[in-house]
Amino acid sequence: MFKAIVSADTLTDALDSVSVLVDECKIRLNEEELSIRAVDPANVGMVDLSLDAAAFESYEADGGVIGVNLGRLEDIAGMANSGDLIQLELNEETRKLHIQIDGLSYTLALIDPDSIRQEPDIPDLDLPAEVVLEGSQLNRGITAADMVSDHISLRVDESEEAFYIEAEGDTDDVDLKLTSEDLIDLTAGPANSLFSLDYLKDMNKAIPKATEVTVDLGEEFPVKLHYEFAEGLGHVTYMLAPRIQSD
Amino acid sequence: MFKAIVSADTLTDALDSVSVLVDECKIRLNEEELSIRAVDPANVGMVDLSLDAAAFESYEADGGVIGVNLGRLEDIAGMANSGDLIQLELNEETRKLHIQIDGLSYTLALIDPDSIRQEPDIPDLDLPAEVVLEGSQLNRGITAADMVSDHISLRVDESEEAFYIEAEGDTDDVDLKLTSEDLIDLTAGPANSLFSLDYLKDMNKAIPKATEVTVDLGEEFPVKLHYEFAEGLGHVTYMLAPRIQSD
Amino acid sequence: MFKAIVSADTLTDALDSVSVLVDECKIRLNEEELSIRAVDPANVGMVDLSLDAAAFESYEADGGVIGVNLGRLEDIAGMANSGDLIQLELNEETRKLHIQIDGLSYTLALIDPDSIRQEPDIPDLDLPAEVVLEGSQLNRGITAADMVSDHISLRVDESEEAFYIEAEGDTDDVDLKLTSEDLIDLTAGPANSLFSLDYLKDMNKAIPKATEVTVDLGEEFPVKLHYEFAEGLGHVTYMLAPRIQSD
Repeated sequence: MFKAIVSADTLTDALDSVSVLVDECKIRLNEEELSIRAVDPANVGMVDLSLDAAAFESYEADGGVIGVNLGRLEDIAGMANSGDLIQLELNEETRKLHIQIDGLSYTLALIDPDSIRQEPDIPDLDLPAEVVLEGSQLNRGITAADMVSDHISLRVDESEEAFYIEAEGDTDDVDLKLTSEDLIDLTAGPANSLFSLDYLKDMNKAIPKATEVTVDLGEEFPVKLHYEFAEGLGHVTYMLAPRIQSD
Repeated sequence: MFKAIVSADTLTDALDSVSVLVDECKIRLNEEELSIRAVDPANVGMVDLSLDAAAFESYEADGGVIGVNLGRLEDIAGMANSGDLIQLELNEETRKLHIQIDGLSYTLALIDPDSIRQEPDIPDLDLPAEVVLEGSQLNRGITAADMVSDHISLRVDESEEAFYIEAEGDTDDVDLKLTSEDLIDLTAGPANSLFSLDYLKDMNKAIPKATEVTVDLGEEFPVKLHYEFAEGLGHVTYMLAPRIQSD
Repeated sequence: MFKAIVSADTLTDALDSVSVLVDECKIRLNEEELSIRAVDPANVGMVDLSLDAAAFESYEADGGVIGVNLGRLEDIAGMANSGDLIQLELNEETRKLHIQIDGLSYTLALIDPDSIRQEPDIPDLDLPAEVVLEGSQLNRGITAADMVSDHISLRVDESEEAFYIEAEGDTDDVDLKLTSEDLIDLTAGPANSLFSLDYLKDMNKAIPKATEVTVDLGEEFPVKLHYEFAEGLGHVTYMLAPRIQSD
């Protein structure tokens, strides 16, 4: 059983954060929250999303799992105006999701959850450094890095108390230095890892630019990026595996 | 003889409503009005446009017919700013149309009207149902239908006093229900016909979203869509042949 | 030695005016001004740009020459917000340009100036007619000409005291007549030359639409287009060779 009403903005924010990594996913419809975990086909980037029942206008669920095509669901949510409410109701017999937006009814065929890549276990890493910054700062560093390289290095300089976003190209280099004045918060620690820029660009697309993003980092360790949406009732965690540093 | 001055907006609205169906057309320059009738190459969609002499700043004509390339004429009209006046004058000897927009002169070679597809006779159908709605509502239904199918069904439910825009895809379905509260006006009657979405999408492109559109419908009959422009002095009627319902 | 601070807008305006003609150029870093001269690969269009030291927030240079990839430099400048300051500093040893924008550092590899096409001598022509008009008027004539032809004729009618921008296509013609009322200034003289529209379209892209442009013309002679930017402290001159009139 699943029946819910949610604002178009909240639903869209939730779907966008997952669709940057995968085309299809399982959605867990638990009593207390809706949740999604997914990993990209190369097993490099993961996402863990939860949206609290309180983020919905109304929410009833009893623990089922549905498989959805994210692009299709985003297109449907895109038919709503910002501020519109979207009604969702699962028909258990037909395995179809009924979606209503102000007079418009859409019947979406679901995907067999067993045919969708297994949900990843997101490891509980103890990462020594934590940087809290605005989405727009992260965006600036990623955009600059993309001008010169396919890789990006995220580094904390403990003595300077600064966070560096760096990229080395064949001829040109770029770095963005963010001191504790530029950052919302910094817990310095040994942290320097290299990442594929493609994945970070995809994750960055979904991160609202005005949002506070928490970046957990270590030495050649995965990075974790956390942010909230839906006024704190939605949580997204991205995890990205590091690349081996070549020099 | 043809000599006229018209606002860029009015001319553009008139041309756009025809160019969604055909690339070239005949324009009849009657004493009382300018008029265009055209049918697409597959004989599925027709347009009938009239623009009253009073919609022009000045208008003099004596019944000639010219053939024009619509895209070219739209490009020229696009050189005007909204609010600009466009002067049109036919040179009978050279068979060229002289167009002037604030210092800019354009000499447009006309097309021999005999080389253009014959104007259709638009049948005078007695359709039992009539729906009057905002262009934006029609647009919403067409956009949603386009997500799942190439066909669209327009239907009036007489007992519910509602107008349905519906589409059935291979896996997903969509429908927009508009009750008499959502509509500007509804004359219920037996009406349920299936149409090619491509044509309706083209017509929809030309229909201003804030305009009142009248939809005349029957049972497996053509649909007629009417709307006005140029403050009621311009009239457009589209007619679209139905597809055979397959189920 | 070169070290300067300049507003992002000023730098972008300067780079854009050159990049419409060439991909790479030499920049002369003189004590009094920064200057660029370049000619397109076909030797048809030239640009001569100078930006006074006073247009910079700070400027120190001693006559060096650097070679740059313009697209790359434009991308970097594009990372700044309008109103941001850009710091430039040449490292003589590494032959790299260090660019700083609010915490972001970019190290740009320079190009060996000897590998860049030689700077043209821009001939000091004594052209008999001079037209001063708004960039938007020139833009209007060029856009209209582009609808019918690959060539454009610029002509001064001495008796009418008017400037004509004209194009003749295979079937259609277009002309924009600008009288002394439409123009900012006109020094009439024998002037009528035909130009490649492609080049003039490229130059037109860089000319701000609200700017005063001075057009110097003769009879089958090159045209010179001058305009200022950076509040009069930057000067651009384009020169374009004429095409032979065929009729």
